[in-house]
Amino acid sequence: MQLLKEKILKYGKVFPGDILKVDSFLNHQVDVRLLEEIGKEFFRLFADCGVNKILTIEASGIGIAGFTAKEFDCPMLFAKKTQTKNIANTVFTEKVMSYTHGKVYDIIVSKEFLLPTDRVLVIDDFLANGEAMRGLIGLVRQAGATLVGCGAVIEKGFQGGGDSLRKEGIRVESLAIIDEMTDDTLAFRK
Amino acid sequence: MQLLKEKILKYGKVFPGDILKVDSFLNHQVDVRLLEEIGKEFFRLFADCGVNKILTIEASGIGIAGFTAKEFDCPMLFAKKTQTKNIANTVFTEKVMSYTHGKVYDIIVSKEFLLPTDRVLVIDDFLANGEAMRGLIGLVRQAGATLVGCGAVIEKGFQGGGDSLRKEGIRVESLAIIDEMTDDTLAFRK
Repeated sequence: MQLLKEKILKYGKVFPGDILKVDSFLNHQVDVRLLEEIGKEFFRLFADCGVNKILTIEASGIGIAGFTAKEFDCPMLFAKKTQTKNIANTVFTEKVMSYTHGKVYDIIVSKEFLLPTDRVLVIDDFLANGEAMRGLIGLVRQAGATLVGCGAVIEKGFQGGGDSLRKEGIRVESLAIIDEMTDDTLAFRK
Repeated sequence: MQLLKEKILKYGKVFPGDILKVDSFLNHQVDVRLLEEIGKEFFRLFADCGVNKILTIEASGIGIAGFTAKEFDCPMLFAKKTQTKNIANTVFTEKVMSYTHGKVYDIIVSKEFLLPTDRVLVIDDFLANGEAMRGLIGLVRQAGATLVGCGAVIEKGFQGGGDSLRKEGIRVESLAIIDEMTDDTLAFRK
């Protein structure tokens, strides 16, 4: 997605530890016009797949998934990262390792909102090692729902999570795949 | 907002501890069509106020603020609840007491995204005792930005946070204000 790649090149900042900061337009301050275009692009890619639910994980995925759900005219469901008093006891749970935060956390969705009849598109802002995406896929499978595919805004190709999922036969569409990232270089996959 | 009130009456569930669960359409599974209407309603209310930034807090506020920002054609900024490796050190911080989770947490925004020239509309899903809203207002004030007003989707009027802010001269617009809530009754403010 050309507009996204231009934004990454113009505003993205590389930090030690393979961190790409895009917090000026994607996951802290958010360029909502870009989100709309991202939603349209995911719709273009998965338009003929019968998607009836968008699943993401809090927090940064929510805006992206919301504008994607708007295009599909279907509900958006966001997994929560810890069990709170406000969520039902009847939940699907997966454990996810966060390398950014250096800890394992639970992600949960209420069973009443993820059904065997659902055809789910999983959406997230980043796809790196694939841990969060695998957690979300796990929730879909626990529900007996159909996984249509996964959409990531930015894939860190050099971390391998996306290609690993593709090898398993899962359709993964990333709007920008970064195969090389140093202080000076940021190379997108062709 | 009539559509919202109908959704609350139809799908909202009251639990002990003054908890109103709206997780089938607002803060877990999300009715994106409703979010669009909410965004339009906030725009109608604050259209002539020169708003150039929407500020909210992760996670449930993000979708609502995103669709509101779409209407204003301005960026959305979401405060984060803890300091992560991915955020700059130069942040504004406020402490917020969460009665739902029974703890105090920090909320932060990067200083580079909240500026003295900004005219900010603060948006959140719930307004109860007003703690989260006050934290967000504190961030706006630390930045020297102009607070245009606050918009909440659902205000628990009986908890007093909204009226307390109004008494201080802050413009608070809630799309549904609940003044009474029991297992059997849910009464909206006229």
